[in-house]
Formats: sequence, structure tokens, C-alpha cells
Amino acid sequence: MNIIDINCDLGESFGIYKLGQDAEIMPYISSANIACGFHAGDPRVMAQTIHLAKKHGVAVGAHPGYPDLVGFGRRDMAMLPDEIEAMLFYQIGALAGICKAEGVDLVHVKPHGALYNKAAKDPDLAVIIAKSVRGFSQGLVLVGLAGSYLVEAGMEVGLDVLSEGFADRVYEPDGSLRSRSLPGAMLTDPNEVARHGLELAKNGVTALIEGKTFHWEIQTICLHGDEPEAAKNAEALFHALQK
Amino acid sequence: MNIIDINCDLGESFGIYKLGQDAEIMPYISSANIACGFHAGDPRVMAQTIHLAKKHGVAVGAHPGYPDLVGFGRRDMAMLPDEIEAMLFYQIGALAGICKAEGVDLVHVKPHGALYNKAAKDPDLAVIIAKSVRGFSQGLVLVGLAGSYLVEAGMEVGLDVLSEGFADRVYEPDGSLRSRSLPGAMLTDPNEVARHGLELAKNGVTALIEGKTFHWEIQTICLHGDEPEAAKNAEALFHALQK
Amino acid sequence: MNIIDINCDLGESFGIYKLGQDAEIMPYISSANIACGFHAGDPRVMAQTIHLAKKHGVAVGAHPGYPDLVGFGRRDMAMLPDEIEAMLFYQIGALAGICKAEGVDLVHVKPHGALYNKAAKDPDLAVIIAKSVRGFSQGLVLVGLAGSYLVEAGMEVGLDVLSEGFADRVYEPDGSLRSRSLPGAMLTDPNEVARHGLELAKNGVTALIEGKTFHWEIQTICLHGDEPEAAKNAEALFHALQK
Amino acid sequence: MNIIDINCDLGESFGIYKLGQDAEIMPYISSANIACGFHAGDPRVMAQTIHLAKKHGVAVGAHPGYPDLVGFGRRDMAMLPDEIEAMLFYQIGALAGICKAEGVDLVHVKPHGALYNKAAKDPDLAVIIAKSVRGFSQGLVLVGLAGSYLVEAGMEVGLDVLSEGFADRVYEPDGSLRSRSLPGAMLTDPNEVARHGLELAKNGVTALIEGKTFHWEIQTICLHGDEPEAAKNAEALFHALQK
Repeated sequence: MNIIDINCDLGESFGIYKLGQDAEIMPYISSANIACGFHAGDPRVMAQTIHLAKKHGVAVGAHPGYPDLVGFGRRDMAMLPDEIEAMLFYQIGALAGICKAEGVDLVHVKPHGALYNKAAKDPDLAVIIAKSVRGFSQGLVLVGLAGSYLVEAGMEVGLDVLSEGFADRVYEPDGSLRSRSLPGAMLTDPNEVARHGLELAKNGVTALIEGKTFHWEIQTICLHGDEPEAAKNAEALFHALQK
Repeated sequence: MNIIDINCDLGESFGIYKLGQDAEIMPYISSANIACGFHAGDPRVMAQTIHLAKKHGVAVGAHPGYPDLVGFGRRDMAMLPDEIEAMLFYQIGALAGICKAEGVDLVHVKPHGALYNKAAKDPDLAVIIAKSVRGFSQGLVLVGLAGSYLVEAGMEVGLDVLSEGFADRVYEPDGSLRSRSLPGAMLTDPNEVARHGLELAKNGVTALIEGKTFHWEIQTICLHGDEPEAAKNAEALFHALQK
Repeated sequence: MNIIDINCDLGESFGIYKLGQDAEIMPYISSANIACGFHAGDPRVMAQTIHLAKKHGVAVGAHPGYPDLVGFGRRDMAMLPDEIEAMLFYQIGALAGICKAEGVDLVHVKPHGALYNKAAKDPDLAVIIAKSVRGFSQGLVLVGLAGSYLVEAGMEVGLDVLSEGFADRVYEPDGSLRSRSLPGAMLTDPNEVARHGLELAKNGVTALIEGKTFHWEIQTICLHGDEPEAAKNAEALFHALQK
Repeated sequence: MNIIDINCDLGESFGIYKLGQDAEIMPYISSANIACGFHAGDPRVMAQTIHLAKKHGVAVGAHPGYPDLVGFGRRDMAMLPDEIEAMLFYQIGALAGICKAEGVDLVHVKPHGALYNKAAKDPDLAVIIAKSVRGFSQGLVLVGLAGSYLVEAGMEVGLDVLSEGFADRVYEPDGSLRSRSLPGAMLTDPNEVARHGLELAKNGVTALIEGKTFHWEIQTICLHGDEPEAAKNAEALFHALQK
């Protein structure tokens, strides 16, 4: 097993509203996906989160989402290809801009919420996203769900891609994530999360789709930062992967 | 008289809402100040405007403003220094991001509306803006009102600065712009606009403040893009300066 | 043929952005559907539009839409039933509130854009809307596409309902509106619009769906207010229906 | 001492963002000032908060603020009188609309944040607010800072007015509230809050302004809902006033 990346969606506060345990989680992760102001985050929160990531030596990535603050980017929206493309350059650029204030490099991009989920299953959207990321910079790393169209599109356009697994979420037999609206979709015990994350890191995801078996390796493991035990999950997973 | 720059605030449409005569004005200007989505503009409009500027060889600049779409960034807001700083990096970065989609360089920054007016008279705000622009890139040019604190702050922090004059606006004896709420504040006849612009280019602005006379040179002349005769004004000024 | 209502979507300006020919159209219509600030309109525009409607004796209605200003409410959004319900009470209430400033009664409600189109085909959404309108006031009139689920739902919950036809849009054989993305979807000649509107008023819409013929009467005819010939269309239709 | 009202600013959550301890506080207060979606709150949060208030028999009031979500309505904005007026009718109407969904009456209006503070000191703004509230309904109660221009304006236009005191905030000798940016501006111990609230209820506020002594009675006592001890403060004050 190689050294594996732990990533977390951070910088999701907005104005007076606090969300997530950014400061507690930072010591245990290697990559931070930072909201860009459309579904969460505001310029000052972005600056503070990049500052915190820098302090902990955590790689900074853009986490662009739909323009839907009240829905937290979790509601699908019927956007046109050129709207999505421009929105991605805008959000990635905005985060890269604030990186300059902190003297930090932008390392990766991972779409958020409904955009992430749609890009996993919709090859056209996946290509739009992959091309936009490459258009911004060929040096950026694209993060997508293991086995998804987004990962495929990223590789096709020549980007470095990280296949992502979720330590704190249960998988369906077909390799998709169990919907959060179903009971038991989230693992909440830090030991269980660490065990699951370690399993993903070692053995990846095995999926059975229409009678065929697929196997996807995992290069980065995601932890949710807004769960009650988020910091403990991060700490437990960090130590499990250390060994 | 040196060759002088003509700039215009463009890309101020938003979604279905059209504002300004961008396509008609582009042939006659050398610099476009493009709204960054806070007071006007949206990602797609920004992309289209940068595309148009590129086609006409017009230099692209960021035109950041207060986060006040319904007020068009013309209402003063009590923002804290770190809010303003983060907002500037965000907006400049967003525009620079979309520039990458079009393979265009970001050349300058000019604050918009109430932010521009306040930066002319408030030395603290002027310094925040100048430092933010330099923090984004030392290669950026800062545009500010001739004789203003913003011009001074830009020079102090070591930026290239362009002192701006307004061809279509009337000046008060103290070198400030006559408030738009007063009658006759705008020149509307293209010939008059061209004559005034030429005068500014040749002789700059002379101001009498508390008994002292000041003289400010003008390096770039602004035309308003949302006036009924905007395109004709641009054409007339362009030809006047050509001679 | 009974006296028929002519309605138009108005109050779609926002801040500095002007949209539509409200003042020119008002003399020729009987009902104004006024945007409520989510997809278009702002409080001041709403007040000005209600004031104008009052002056012309035009009935005031709420025109609620998705919370998507940059998409003008024309992009479908995956909203939950309780989000839609609360959003409708909010928008109708906001317009009713501004009606109080002008001493005008709120008469009707017509959903806008993607919400209107979805409510025509989605019986669950249609019921949510109909119940929300009735919950606000049993005295409100609901306006929906002739033959749609929205009209059906409105009648089922006991509301007065007006079936709507579009004078300036072409119908498909199945009674639906031709998509605006297809050529020839809009009628642009005022005489043609008037003729089509008169035909709708006299004979309603005849639709052939899966081999069965349906016939829907029309009680209100819509004109688009943002078309170049909007005011002329309104005038021509008004005079045609007068006769 | 008469029976006194305890009010609290509630419904300040937004989308996924939770703010305040609404459910814990409701049992101990008599009036809820509910955010209307401009500086905080969204339609669904408003509906949930009204529902909760109804369950506890708490009077529902509108808490309108500046259109500044990221600044939580705490930043002053240069709005024009007609913008403020329309914004007030809009926000009060929106909350009144959602009240209809719950079958609850709207009882009072209290401006929020920077709007509240400005209305205390700016007689013109105070009159705009008072007239707007009365224009919405003569039956509404206006809540303002004891001794402020807002209270005066409310009485002048013939509204029922409640003079407000703050149980958890320290007063300056001139009867104004100590700025939150100063140390010790907030009382954080529930016993101290209760004692201060009781004192306000019994003896009102005594202020020394330019050598003259003023005395203002207090009819309603405000508790902040977003303080860590908010619910305990409410409980302690409730029991202190009960006696």
C-alpha cells in the first residue's frame, strides 16, 4: 500500500454561520477541498481556511459547486454547458486568487455535492469539468469518485487524477455510495471509520455491475467535516493509515 | 501628448439582463474594466466579455465592487478591512480564472462605483486596495481617479498606476467629479465628450483645493458604457485622440 | 365568446437592469403577473409595478419563481416539497405586502418559468402549488396552462382557476407549447399575434394526445412582455378582442 | 411593575447553517422576532420558526434587516428611502405570508442589526420605518430601543410601541448600549442577566445626556439567542420576572 491522501471538504462556513470543525481536522488530513462561495464559503472564510491549511502543510484544492447557497449545492440544477464551464473557471480562479494572498499554490479541484454526484454518472458533464480544470491549469489534480465518469474524463484529457473513496460512508454492491437519505448510510464510530478507510486504502472498491465485477483503486480518502465526530474520525483514520 | 488609453466599464450584464453596448464600444477603446460578479456580471457574461476584448485586442482588467447586485455597487457599505481584502483577491482571481479560459492576460484593476469613490477620499481604504492588487500580482496596473488617494497608494506600494479622467463627466473646481445626482453632471453630446476627453489628455485636470492649485496628468480616459450615446461617444473620442 | 383576460409577466426589472416594456403594455392588459424577487424583480421594482398597475386598473397577481436570479427562474431545480411550499408563501406574501403600500388587492397567482412548466406536467408539484395558493387565501385566482395538471389541481382544491393560452407562441399538436429553443416558436408579427390570440379566445386549444382529442377553453391570454414588439402585440390583441 | 414581554431574535438559521437555540429558548419568551430572509433566515426556516412559536404560544414578529446575508445585516448600507420602504413592506409581507401557512397572526415588527441601530439615532430613517409598519397594518406593534427616535416616530404615527431594554447588554451612562466591540459589553452569567433584566423591568433606563437626566420605561426585554448561554439566560430571566 502506498502512502494515501486524506481529504476533507472545509471552508464551508459563511459570514456569521459556522460549519465544520476545520481547525480540529486540519492536523490529520493532507488535502483540503475549500468551498468557493457559490454553495458555501465567503471570501474571508476562504482566506482563513487557506491560512489554516498552510499552517498545517495541507494541500489546498478548490471545491466548486452549484450557485445555490440556501441548498448548499446539493440540489441539482439544469445549467447549460457554457454556464458550468464559466462557473468553474470563476470559482477555481477565485480560490486561486485568495491563495495568492497567502502565498500558497492551488493543487487540486474536486466538485461539490450535486455537481460531484452528477459528474460521476453523466459523461458529458464529466468532460466539461475535466476540460475546464485542465483549461485552468494542466498542473491541477482532479479528484473524483472511484469508478466514475469524472475520473475517466480526467484521465482522458491528460490530468493527474485521484480516485476517491469515502471512509465514513457505506457503499452499495454496485460501487455507488448509499444515499444519505437511507438509514445507516453514514458510519459514525471513529474506529469503524478508520477500519473502513484502511480497507479502502488497501483493497479499493469492488463493484458488481450487471453481472460484471469491477475493481477500483483508491488514492484519496474523504472524511466529512460536518459530522459530529468529524475530528475524531480524522484522527482515527490518520493513525490507522500511519501504521 | 502621449498616446493615451481609453477605458470603459464593460461586462455589466447579468443573466437575462443586458446592460451597455459592449460590442459597439470595443472597437474604440484600449482597456476594458470587466465586472466580477459582485455588483454586476456573471461568469458567462465575464467569459463573453473577455472573448470580445481579445477579439478587439483590448486589454482586460478586473472591475471589482461591493457585494450589492441590486444596488449595482453604488451604495456604500461598512465593510471591514479583511472583508475588503478577501473580496478583492476573490474578484480579481475570478476574472483572472476566466481569462485563462480565453488565454488572455489580466492587465489592470480598477475598483467600481462606491468602492472607487471611497478609495479616492479614504487613504486607509486606498492602501488596502493597492496592497491587495500588488499582493495578487506586482505586474498589475492600478487605475484610479487622478489626484486621488488611490493613485497615491498605488505608487507608494510600487505598482504601475494610471491616473484616470472622465470624458463624459463634468468636474468641480476642486477636481472632483460633479455628483450624478446634479443636473448637467454628464456630457451627452459625442462632440462635447470628445473635446472634453482631448482636453483631459492634453492638459490633465487642474484643481483648486483650499486655495492651492493642483495639477494632475491623465493617462487613461474613461467613458461610461451604459449611456445612450456610449458607442458614439467612444467613436468620437477615439478619432479625436487619434489625430 | 366571453370577455377575456389579457395577462402579461411584468415587474421583471432588477436594480439598474431594465427588462420589458411595462409602461407601454399596461394600457392594453387586464392582469399583471409581477415577479417577486426570486427569479426577477426587487422590492422597489415591485412597488413601482404595482403602482403602475393600479393607475391603469390592471389586476395585480404574484408571479413566483425558483430562487435563481442569474437563470431567470428558467432552470429546473431539485427543490423539496416543503421548500417549494415555504417559497410560495414567502413570495406571494412579499408581493401582497407591497400591495398594502399601494392600497391594492392581490388578485391572482401564476407560477413563473421552469416552475410553471414543471407544474403543468408534474401532478405532485401542481398540488403543492394549488394548496399553497389556497392556504394563502381562498380568494386568490390560480392561473395555469390550459389542459395542465396545475389547472386540474387548482380546481380540485376549490380555487377559481383561469386556463391560460399564449397568443405569441406556437402550439404543438399535443397542446403543449413549442419549445423556445426551436425556430418559429414565437410569433413576432403583431397582427399574427392578435389573430392567434383571438382564435384562442374563441375556440380554445385542441390537442391530440395518444389518439384522443382534448379541447381546452381559454380564459386568459398571455403576452410576453420582453419581446421586441411586446407593446404592439398587446395593442393589436387588445383591439382584436375588443371587437 | 406590569407584566413584561421577553423577546428574542429567532429564525436566524439559513439552509444547512444552524444559528441560535430557538427550541430551547421558546418556552421562556413571549415574543419572537423572526428574520425575513434578507440578513438571515430562509422561507423554510421562517415556516419552522413560526410553527415553533405557535406551539409555545409565542407572539410572532417580523425582524427585517438590510439585504446583506454575508454581513448578517450588521453592516450599514447607504440605501435610499424608497428602497428601505419597499424592502420593509417586502420582508414584513413575506413573514406575514408564511404566518398564513401556519394560521398565525403577525403581531409586531422590530428592525434588525444595523437598521435597528441607525433607526435609533436617525430620525428620518425612524419615520420611514414607522410609516412603513403602519402602512402595512395599523394593528402592528413597533419595537424599538428605549429612548430612541424609532420609539418616538412610532408613537407619532399612532402605532402601539414597545420600548426595549437588553437584559444581556451593558448600558453606557447616556442610555446607549455599550458597543459589542468593547470588552464586557455582554453579560454572560444567567443570574446576572436575570438581575439586569429585572432591574430594567422595574426601573427602566436612566440616561444622562448633555447634563440632562432622562428616564425611559421598558416594556419588552430582549435576550440574544445566539449567545452560548442563551437558553439559560432566558430561563433565568423568565423565572425572575415571574416572581
